Amino acid sequence: MNPISPFFLVQLQILLPPASYSLESSVLEGYSHDESSQKAVMPLAVVWPENAGQIAAVLKLCNEQRIPVTARGGGSSLEGNAVPSPGGIVLSLEKMNTVLEILPEDFQVRLQPGVIYDDLNRQLARFGLFFAPGPSSGDVATIGGMVGNNAGGMNALRYGVTRDHVLRLQVALADGALLWFGTRAMKSSSGFDLVRLMVGSEGMLGIVTEIVLRLHGLPERRTALAHFPTLETAAQAVFEVMRSGILPGALELMDAVSIQHLNIFKKWSWPETPTLLFEFHGAPRGIAEELEITRQLCQEIGATTFREAASPAEREQLWAGRKEITRAEQDIFAGHIFFKGDIAVPLSQYVPTIQKAQNLAEEHGLSISAFGHAGDGNLHTTIPALPGDAEACIRAEKLMDDLIRFALSVGGTASGEHGIGLAKRKYLSEEHGAAVEVMRRIKQVLDPNGILNPGKMFLE
Amino acid sequence: MNPISPFFLVQLQILLPPASYSLESSVLEGYSHDESSQKAVMPLAVVWPENAGQIAAVLKLCNEQRIPVTARGGGSSLEGNAVPSPGGIVLSLEKMNTVLEILPEDFQVRLQPGVIYDDLNRQLARFGLFFAPGPSSGDVATIGGMVGNNAGGMNALRYGVTRDHVLRLQVALADGALLWFGTRAMKSSSGFDLVRLMVGSEGMLGIVTEIVLRLHGLPERRTALAHFPTLETAAQAVFEVMRSGILPGALELMDAVSIQHLNIFKKWSWPETPTLLFEFHGAPRGIAEELEITRQLCQEIGATTFREAASPAEREQLWAGRKEITRAEQDIFAGHIFFKGDIAVPLSQYVPTIQKAQNLAEEHGLSISAFGHAGDGNLHTTIPALPGDAEACIRAEKLMDDLIRFALSVGGTASGEHGIGLAKRKYLSEEHGAAVEVMRRIKQVLDPNGILNPGKMFLE
Repeated sequence: MNPISPFFLVQLQILLPPASYSLESSVLEGYSHDESSQKAVMPLAVVWPENAGQIAAVLKLCNEQRIPVTARGGGSSLEGNAVPSPGGIVLSLEKMNTVLEILPEDFQVRLQPGVIYDDLNRQLARFGLFFAPGPSSGDVATIGGMVGNNAGGMNALRYGVTRDHVLRLQVALADGALLWFGTRAMKSSSGFDLVRLMVGSEGMLGIVTEIVLRLHGLPERRTALAHFPTLETAAQAVFEVMRSGILPGALELMDAVSIQHLNIFKKWSWPETPTLLFEFHGAPRGIAEELEITRQLCQEIGATTFREAASPAEREQLWAGRKEITRAEQDIFAGHIFFKGDIAVPLSQYVPTIQKAQNLAEEHGLSISAFGHAGDGNLHTTIPALPGDAEACIRAEKLMDDLIRFALSVGGTASGEHGIGLAKRKYLSEEHGAAVEVMRRIKQVLDPNGILNPGKMFLE
Repeated sequence: MNPISPFFLVQLQILLPPASYSLESSVLEGYSHDESSQKAVMPLAVVWPENAGQIAAVLKLCNEQRIPVTARGGGSSLEGNAVPSPGGIVLSLEKMNTVLEILPEDFQVRLQPGVIYDDLNRQLARFGLFFAPGPSSGDVATIGGMVGNNAGGMNALRYGVTRDHVLRLQVALADGALLWFGTRAMKSSSGFDLVRLMVGSEGMLGIVTEIVLRLHGLPERRTALAHFPTLETAAQAVFEVMRSGILPGALELMDAVSIQHLNIFKKWSWPETPTLLFEFHGAPRGIAEELEITRQLCQEIGATTFREAASPAEREQLWAGRKEITRAEQDIFAGHIFFKGDIAVPLSQYVPTIQKAQNLAEEHGLSISAFGHAGDGNLHTTIPALPGDAEACIRAEKLMDDLIRFALSVGGTASGEHGIGLAKRKYLSEEHGAAVEVMRRIKQVLDPNGILNPGKMFLE
């Protein structure tokens, strides 16, 4: 028996057409989890609003009835951000997936939150434009979800993260008020920055119902891969390239273990040493030059190989390497649970952090792979453990814990781009200290009844 | 007689050494205004704290005594942002002007809020680094003031405004609590974004006591000037260059009237037509290519001249043009009051906005000049009027009013980079609608007694 109250259900039926909500447990099940390893929670109901008015009306009802609401995009969150709050409903933005207006002369697009990242960029490409951040999960991640988590990705180094691209948001507040935050001007110093307060707030301050994004012109691209004898030399290359005034489109690191996994999975024979993937964005001769400067810097620093993608096919292959690390791990470690990290540290601490990860793995008798957005200091780590091996799982969790604390101790953050969700809650106070109290007060003022994704971000 | 209460004065004397405050009217006078045309207000006292602890202690006292506090950097605000609140004190950050730590490997600097923009960049240049935004008033503007107003400038197009560069802030809240917001990681999705909430809050949510900025590598630069027969062709060049994937270091527009003023002041003979100033930042061959692409685009579109700065001296000369427009106007219109605007509009509305300004000027029988950061859609306008000519002053004010309303009607903002202060308060609700209520609630929760720069931003 679904514990939904008959009164709430009747009200929902008044607000929404029958196809716009479901109480069926087979449906609810699919919305009970995200891509994290957090425990599933069955929602009371799933609703699929079709416009901002319906979202506002559902929120007003839930606010009156004190029913928690968890907004959900593609469900690809990695920290439990989209796991339903107990006793609450899921508000899925899937049906609100329309690109409303492409404004090429403004370098802007206005869209609904359920639009998928790759779909958006396919539509924008016809205008020679793109929305830059570049999450690995771009085939499922929605723009609304990216806004909720302040998603980053491969191109964040040159163009910034989601937060840097959101100009204007329509937001439904907990009480059902529909407001617009921000401006369509490219810059503004008018009033407090409510847009950026909303971005990364994980559905806890309001629900985004419409979005205006800033776009960039699609540049020419050159891609190259460099293998290094040591992490230190790879890191030095990152530093020297960035100091030269070059702003790479992407600058990704894969450690030796990641390359091993790729070689097994793809039957490649890449040198199993720390590897950098560079991409340069701009006009043809300029990026050719950036590539040459980078080649020289890498060779001076001691790169053993520096290989440019000579064709679009080869470019795809180099990127496939970076993008398929996770798939390789899932294949090689089938049946394992994966303990995944998403820390970011100041650039000078990137190598010490990877070394710390490797030392901790050795200490705990675990295998760890590390890869990530080196130019940003954002590091993703993966530890596979067998679910039956409770002791290994505990050690893996301990390792992750130690590593996050290390990142915080060197001035870093517990989450580079995945958010806090459920998984990282215990680090919020360690990272922000008394500032968490300010966050709580802002939450309280915008959502006094605490119906917006309660239980996330803050430990109760 | 200074109306300061004896009790407050005694407390202040306990908290601060004698050299750290003044009640002398000759001193107070200098702090009674900023660079705006807003009416001066004499503060009760000026304090010059030397560290965060003193700031916190002064705030705690003022909070208990309900004494307004207006923070002040270089005093170069243009909208009355730094004009003292009636019955309040000025908290000047002038003595907190130390660059605390340059972290070249992290592309970061940690500094006190009173450091002046140009001084900072002089120190950073030795490390091949710079803090990018580039305000015209960089010789007096402090970093703290730039944070307070979310200042932009010449390089904001490529690198972003101040908001995009602030990683971490130490903030004294109204009650005297000292907190840290943000992280030294280059990106983060951990908790609500309190850093960007503080940036641009005009000293109304807290007072910034220490700042960590993100820096960029100093690039090679190429500079060029292009004259166009019409505003439309100039605007088309802006659009085509940006769509080509080039991200210029600067892209500035000067209208025909601005060039006329320059020619008179500098005894130059530049063609008196709409003019674009381009700067390209990057590696040598790349920026040479960007310049060539831009030259071709400009010529195809109909530029009458395209002139590259062949030497550093000529580069200085081209930039002097852009930077000395204001000085030229002050010289030509000595004794006039200047009505200045700082709107920003979506790119496609840039030319219509300038045309609107010109039409309004004709209608009102006034002379107007327009220049600004064309790549950002940020337009500065100046109307000189004689203070004795009350009727002209009223018409100038009416023109500005009409122009701001026009900017809002096309999706723009009342302030591109100068803030709201006193001068733009009436537009806040027109621009943000009911979102202003959310801003007020956030102000209320962080500053319940309303001591932080009261009277700014919001109409009472």
